[in-house]
Amino acid sequence: MSDARLLSALSSLSHVAKQLEIPPPAAPELDANCVKLNMNENPFPLPAIVREAAIAAFERHYLYPEDDNVGLREAAASAYGLSADQVIAGNGSSELLGLIYNAFLAPGDVVAMMSPGFSFNRKLAMLHEAQFLEIGWGKDHSLPTHQLLFGPARDAKFVVLANPNNPTGTFVPVADIERLVAQSDRLIVLDEAYVDFAPDNGLRLVNRYSNLLLLRTFSKSYATAGLRVGFGFGHPELIGRLRTMQNLFNMNVIGHAVGMSIIAHRAAFEENHRQIMLERERTSVALSKLGFTVLPSHANFLLARVPEGHDGAWWQATLQRQNVLVAFFPEKGLENFIRITIGTERQMDAFLSTVSRISSSSI
Amino acid sequence: MSDARLLSALSSLSHVAKQLEIPPPAAPELDANCVKLNMNENPFPLPAIVREAAIAAFERHYLYPEDDNVGLREAAASAYGLSADQVIAGNGSSELLGLIYNAFLAPGDVVAMMSPGFSFNRKLAMLHEAQFLEIGWGKDHSLPTHQLLFGPARDAKFVVLANPNNPTGTFVPVADIERLVAQSDRLIVLDEAYVDFAPDNGLRLVNRYSNLLLLRTFSKSYATAGLRVGFGFGHPELIGRLRTMQNLFNMNVIGHAVGMSIIAHRAAFEENHRQIMLERERTSVALSKLGFTVLPSHANFLLARVPEGHDGAWWQATLQRQNVLVAFFPEKGLENFIRITIGTERQMDAFLSTVSRISSSSI
Repeated sequence: MSDARLLSALSSLSHVAKQLEIPPPAAPELDANCVKLNMNENPFPLPAIVREAAIAAFERHYLYPEDDNVGLREAAASAYGLSADQVIAGNGSSELLGLIYNAFLAPGDVVAMMSPGFSFNRKLAMLHEAQFLEIGWGKDHSLPTHQLLFGPARDAKFVVLANPNNPTGTFVPVADIERLVAQSDRLIVLDEAYVDFAPDNGLRLVNRYSNLLLLRTFSKSYATAGLRVGFGFGHPELIGRLRTMQNLFNMNVIGHAVGMSIIAHRAAFEENHRQIMLERERTSVALSKLGFTVLPSHANFLLARVPEGHDGAWWQATLQRQNVLVAFFPEKGLENFIRITIGTERQMDAFLSTVSRISSSSI
Repeated sequence: MSDARLLSALSSLSHVAKQLEIPPPAAPELDANCVKLNMNENPFPLPAIVREAAIAAFERHYLYPEDDNVGLREAAASAYGLSADQVIAGNGSSELLGLIYNAFLAPGDVVAMMSPGFSFNRKLAMLHEAQFLEIGWGKDHSLPTHQLLFGPARDAKFVVLANPNNPTGTFVPVADIERLVAQSDRLIVLDEAYVDFAPDNGLRLVNRYSNLLLLRTFSKSYATAGLRVGFGFGHPELIGRLRTMQNLFNMNVIGHAVGMSIIAHRAAFEENHRQIMLERERTSVALSKLGFTVLPSHANFLLARVPEGHDGAWWQATLQRQNVLVAFFPEKGLENFIRITIGTERQMDAFLSTVSRISSSSI
């Protein structure tokens, strides 16, 4: 094999692809018995009827999935009070976020994200050679509307904003978001991945504002992170363009069937959501007693400042040695925090007793 | 809702996204009893063990899929004699084709495709504002190597080529492809979607040439079009960059599990492949007797020139009225052809008797 040929093939890569790093080898497989509270997954067994829909759909394994996700989009539209041409479906909202970057950004463009936020946005901006602006949350995690409208973000092609926000778990009133969307002439991408654990949501804004793109996922509140079901809601002119740019047959028949069945049986998940909100409260109180400072959360996780003496990385590593996984973010400002997913009562008991053991032995 | 706001949001779209047409409403649902021979699907019931792997994987519905498709990539690498860093996995090879366009093309670049070919390439080129060159096959569907090396395609960022080719079904010797890859300093994207129905394949070239990207899909020969499992094989430097550009958690746990299980039980599909090749021969002979001119096929379909008197569109529409679906391509040069997928013996009997009935009544 000639290196000259490799260099020649590599030289055909686009400017940005040339600079990419090759991914590192994957992390080793985890202990199946660990208490996994690091990725905001929801360990809820799906209702039997959703399971049966998936098994029935498997019979269609040899047929191409429905073109343009029609049935799933129609089901979501009907459930959320929209029309099908206001809905796009994807393998999680992450696929749709990628599409938005594809549709809006050219090299040199500016994109803005409320920060701290979902760090995958930084990578997407890099892949499009866009300038990535991180706008800090205001006092008490409020929305800095004035800054978004008149600061450097006014040049952004779009602004990405999560409500509830990840990793803080904080929630801003929908009225504040509406004020921003109404006054802005930018596209606002509102990621509502965690909204089913919050007191309100922005769905009613979709029909009012054509510069809003709302993202939803079934990964967290509908316990299907492994099946990849996400949605985007917005004006038909925007949604239609995103659909045109989407991969042919992007989702598989299982994603379609499970998504439609969940939509038809959403009520079956309400008890699970209530349970997670109760566990969230219990865990927050218990963590406070152990010296953590917990941010008010409206998601299925808590962001907690660790007690003085050790940093977040230490806590994550120490918990991991005890088979408890939580998330740590090395970004500036988050060094002394860990993020804990709210799982089952049993998982939270195991987490809290491990934290308690670590606390008493490290004093 | 102000139109001014919509116009403003639309004005943020990239140059190409602005020009996109909104997709038309989907075609009506098909009759479930139709003889579906229009999309090269393989109506083979999956082995029980593959089915069980899917059902077991469904238990992981609430957990994110394995990052970077590690297990599936390792399984494919081991089965095909490659290393995992030479393998990328996606929701069908169509996702990977899209990634290749993302990685290599900037506006104004040139991409070349052997034509007739997979027309989705034309759309991908348009989405990247690239110039799309269609290079015609040589005499008897041979590879026009000289033209690819020294004609206008020499300026292409990459050349897309399918072997067996779709929609012709024709196959060029792997030695001819090797000669092209060896002499070219362009990237050659070799789509082997149909290769399991052909006498040879290009896998051995992957370790020899760093300017080759080989695409495979399980949609056709492994009867999983609905589950979306595809692969790309190539040099680690190219594959690694494509993986870096891929969506987070692109495939779901069912795609992973079914892909790995099929790889472990490939031998169970051999009888199906033999059966399809036998039916292909039988159908070809029978069609010839009915006045069709059938191209020699090494895929799970036949491209047939219809008898004089009617064109391909007429035959497709007439067959559809009898509940038999075949493909027709309105492109220049294909007006008098239809493409027929090879299904079960029973499906082909139904197809042939319908054709025979139409032939005798239209004389």
